[in-house]
Amino acid sequence: MSNATFSFPIRVYYEDTDAGGIVYYANYLKFFERARTEWLRALGIEQDFLLAKDVAFVVRQVMMDNTKAAKFNELLTVQSQISSLKRASILFKQEIVNQVGQRVCSAEIKVACISLQEMKARAIPAEVTEVLKGVR
Amino acid sequence: MSNATFSFPIRVYYEDTDAGGIVYYANYLKFFERARTEWLRALGIEQDFLLAKDVAFVVRQVMMDNTKAAKFNELLTVQSQISSLKRASILFKQEIVNQVGQRVCSAEIKVACISLQEMKARAIPAEVTEVLKGVR
Amino acid sequence: MSNATFSFPIRVYYEDTDAGGIVYYANYLKFFERARTEWLRALGIEQDFLLAKDVAFVVRQVMMDNTKAAKFNELLTVQSQISSLKRASILFKQEIVNQVGQRVCSAEIKVACISLQEMKARAIPAEVTEVLKGVR
Amino acid sequence: MSNATFSFPIRVYYEDTDAGGIVYYANYLKFFERARTEWLRALGIEQDFLLAKDVAFVVRQVMMDNTKAAKFNELLTVQSQISSLKRASILFKQEIVNQVGQRVCSAEIKVACISLQEMKARAIPAEVTEVLKGVR
Repeated sequence: MSNATFSFPIRVYYEDTDAGGIVYYANYLKFFERARTEWLRALGIEQDFLLAKDVAFVVRQVMMDNTKAAKFNELLTVQSQISSLKRASILFKQEIVNQVGQRVCSAEIKVACISLQEMKARAIPAEVTEVLKGVR
Repeated sequence: MSNATFSFPIRVYYEDTDAGGIVYYANYLKFFERARTEWLRALGIEQDFLLAKDVAFVVRQVMMDNTKAAKFNELLTVQSQISSLKRASILFKQEIVNQVGQRVCSAEIKVACISLQEMKARAIPAEVTEVLKGVR
Repeated sequence: MSNATFSFPIRVYYEDTDAGGIVYYANYLKFFERARTEWLRALGIEQDFLLAKDVAFVVRQVMMDNTKAAKFNELLTVQSQISSLKRASILFKQEIVNQVGQRVCSAEIKVACISLQEMKARAIPAEVTEVLKGVR
Repeated sequence: MSNATFSFPIRVYYEDTDAGGIVYYANYLKFFERARTEWLRALGIEQDFLLAKDVAFVVRQVMMDNTKAAKFNELLTVQSQISSLKRASILFKQEIVNQVGQRVCSAEIKVACISLQEMKARAIPAEVTEVLKGVR
């Protein structure tokens, strides 16, 4: 696997499941975000610093396919890639696989860079873009 | 509005927001599910009875656009429609609007009927299909 | 019931349950907060206005007893009372009962008034205190 | 630190925070549960196996003090101890500290062993008790 893919493990806890005994569908979006955050961190970008400068990443679009249910206590892996990097947005391709390599969930998630003060789009900071170019 | 659209109010509590001051994106999926559940209930279908007969609805696919951030304490309305009804799945078209009528979020959500015991697709129970035909 | 008790209904959705088939314990704290928020709202106090003036209520202490599990799809009622009202904090006594009147959960929750900017305690605004005195 | 204390790291993600910019209070209970689960796992006890045998741990009582707010992106550590081990329940003493060693939150959490089928208390399995005795 090249440095163009970032892998991050997620354990399924009680909090993530529902009465069907499986992971509640909204929680996959939490898993995807944790993985994006840890990827940025691994690249030296800490989002609290960005937030302090009124730079936030918000999700604009989600396309998610749930292929196979994940269960309580499973160890999942989130695999993330950047499929497109624009001036003010990033398109991530993310996938969750279980311990036997089956795909649980896949998604394309478009993240936009915004100013929270003004609640409008802004360019991704140059230092972030620079770093992300290196993992495409 | 015909009976083909079901409206359900959602108040944004602290639990729904994040440090950006806005609704955390995964939580819209909770709002959409509450609205689907209340629609079924309004039509006389209680999902705990279905679950007791090993009939569960699980989300197979989500396409969601987040157009405008919703904030703490806003009163939102979820509007739901069925765009397609098949033997073993339902395609919902759902939208969240804020108090001044702006669209916050829209989604197409494909829900499949499964047996949790066997973890595989099964036909939607006839009594449910019958009722849903009436609101298409 | 006097105006000293505020009742608020909560429906248990899939999102609230876990793989044990029952409400996940942390979620009762969400239910309690929804009820406190709706009580304040019913009394004319909107917390987004307070937040805009850097006045926030944060929980300082929780004592919670879980007596009986609540299940998916149950309709619960949260009953809230104020047992003590101080200069900078409020002690709530809250209880969740199910549809057949059984106590699911009871709690004493101490809420402090803080300035988020300074992250320290501050007096509860006079207009809030005034209103809360009326429901003790 | 003896083997009587188990330390587990938790990163604060957007999902954990609220519009106040700090960790939402209910989420500390999730953090505490993750730490208990990982401690059991580190001791060789996997809760999905227990659940498959209708043995579940449910929280009966929570006493929690929130001393200091934790913020987005902080790295926290949960420290867990067992203060009392009975036939059908365990009393945990848990504490969350931040990166500079300040106490964020402390709790005493009473966990009971139940049969979910019968929804009543049952003895903790002997193999679990045996292992837990070793870390008291």
